Amino acid sequence: MEITLDSPLDMHLHLRDGDMLKLTAPLSADFAGAVIMPNLVPPITTPDKMAAYSGRIREAMGDSPFTRYMTLFFTPQTEATLKCIRNTPEFFGFKLYPAGITTNSEGGIAHMDDADSTLRMMEEMDIPLLVHGESHGFVMDRETEFLAVYRDLATRYPKLRISMEHITTAAALELLDEFENLCATVTLQHLIITLDDVAGGALNPHLFCKPIAKRPGDRDALLQAALNGHPRLMFGSDSAPHPLHRKECCGCAAGVFTAPLALPRLAALFAEHHALGKLQDFVSGNACRIFGLAPVSKQVTLTDTPMHVPASYRSFGQQVVPMYAGQDIAWSIKKA
Amino acid sequence: MEITLDSPLDMHLHLRDGDMLKLTAPLSADFAGAVIMPNLVPPITTPDKMAAYSGRIREAMGDSPFTRYMTLFFTPQTEATLKCIRNTPEFFGFKLYPAGITTNSEGGIAHMDDADSTLRMMEEMDIPLLVHGESHGFVMDRETEFLAVYRDLATRYPKLRISMEHITTAAALELLDEFENLCATVTLQHLIITLDDVAGGALNPHLFCKPIAKRPGDRDALLQAALNGHPRLMFGSDSAPHPLHRKECCGCAAGVFTAPLALPRLAALFAEHHALGKLQDFVSGNACRIFGLAPVSKQVTLTDTPMHVPASYRSFGQQVVPMYAGQDIAWSIKKA
Repeated sequence: MEITLDSPLDMHLHLRDGDMLKLTAPLSADFAGAVIMPNLVPPITTPDKMAAYSGRIREAMGDSPFTRYMTLFFTPQTEATLKCIRNTPEFFGFKLYPAGITTNSEGGIAHMDDADSTLRMMEEMDIPLLVHGESHGFVMDRETEFLAVYRDLATRYPKLRISMEHITTAAALELLDEFENLCATVTLQHLIITLDDVAGGALNPHLFCKPIAKRPGDRDALLQAALNGHPRLMFGSDSAPHPLHRKECCGCAAGVFTAPLALPRLAALFAEHHALGKLQDFVSGNACRIFGLAPVSKQVTLTDTPMHVPASYRSFGQQVVPMYAGQDIAWSIKKA
Repeated sequence: MEITLDSPLDMHLHLRDGDMLKLTAPLSADFAGAVIMPNLVPPITTPDKMAAYSGRIREAMGDSPFTRYMTLFFTPQTEATLKCIRNTPEFFGFKLYPAGITTNSEGGIAHMDDADSTLRMMEEMDIPLLVHGESHGFVMDRETEFLAVYRDLATRYPKLRISMEHITTAAALELLDEFENLCATVTLQHLIITLDDVAGGALNPHLFCKPIAKRPGDRDALLQAALNGHPRLMFGSDSAPHPLHRKECCGCAAGVFTAPLALPRLAALFAEHHALGKLQDFVSGNACRIFGLAPVSKQVTLTDTPMHVPASYRSFGQQVVPMYAGQDIAWSIKKA
């Protein structure tokens, strides 16, 4: 069995910087493009920094054509700067983080009212808003507690295109269905795992991410929505490389690295559920329609020949352990 | 401020064996005695093995008087063997594990009906039953799902003394209040932490245990019951040493090591909530009354002078990281 995807997109990707960028960027090269997260240290907050980062990504990608949808770390903006930002090549939207909610988000927004005037202008200028939607509450409740904020945003800014990033709960899906101006990304791992895989047997740091994987009912609802071709649900890997020593030592960092195996694993998952026909929309079609994207043209053929996932990816002095490290995945990318 | 405790007991303790036993046993020597768990590899299933293990513990304890309440790993028994076991010195009761539910429990009970005839005889002979009460379900639901089994046991064997080991939920406390023949142990960490402390920030393997820490409401209910002097709630540390490399590597083992700091931290906790007067019952009185225990006489004076918890405990080639490693606790044991 085979399927050829047109210009697959990863709508939520962490590439980091420096040597880690050099390692990770080529591992996303099967995608035609990606929405690049801005939470570096320090975060990407200005068009200049963004343009420079985009250039470093282009360089790290080498010869591979790849459309960079760059984001800026949300901070309040004036109308003049917003107009300038909007016209910056490769700019896609703002990523809003509640302050301190995840990796490198210390400079995020503490009170949503501080964002109001900027959000009104973004609505007017049709600049997308991407949100890490978690409260500071109990870890299993953070996303559901944040849904009130999403509801408020969707109501107050009816024309603002709001992406609920990396949703993990059935409740978030329900909210998605209530508002036409909401869309959402979901990761590979949240279609597959639950908290059981992180902490139900032995503790597994390589499946620890934020938001944390939730209950079986949540996972099942997300998977079903993807398989059913939900028109406003998009694939965003949230692939988040950390050096090995930040994962396997005490106090491990949050993030699952899936970029190099995401397309094969998604193909296997959709094939297993007889839903391969919905994969194109999930990994590209929905995003292109919702945001009017036209990434570089790239065909990727996936086939039901197994892929062996290496125990780790190493280069430039960096080492990253992927999901399914050392295991086989039922599908792989067919090389020309 | 000071409090002197009479013969404090740890009603649920893992001492392991070999070099690890030599390291851990003396670290429980402030207690007058403890209920010793039998899930070694292989588990302690016969009076002979139990007597030999008890001897090794006595030796590892050195000069410290310490009452060993030994348990046997529950397997179905005949009347003759039960009568023999009951008369074995130091025998306290059977510990029942659902098969495969926690560390070294592979030989546990798969179907509770297989235990029926043994449980009837234990009821008749007044042999206590200690239970690791978790289902094989979703990690956050395992204890609540098991409550139906506890209810069934408490109903079918009304004179059997059943200890719900290391309870972690408000729902378990509610069940405890329904049946006079149920009692329960609770650990130090489950009075203090929630899943947030394990996986809410960075992943913390040293606070990962089974049953996993639950929601804030569960923690609050357990703490309140302890502070209120619940007459059938007993301290059982479930202190569970693992070698450092089994905790900080990928796939870390479940267990929190608290034995050497449990009494100071409990004193600090009860003092903080103006409930020091309830501590004696929690750490000894309730257990002695419920089970008719008479441990060695040992007075332990706790004082509000800080204790510094070492980064790890090492000896005999073993290294174990305790809860609060490298931190200060507000109370300490007053040495004579």
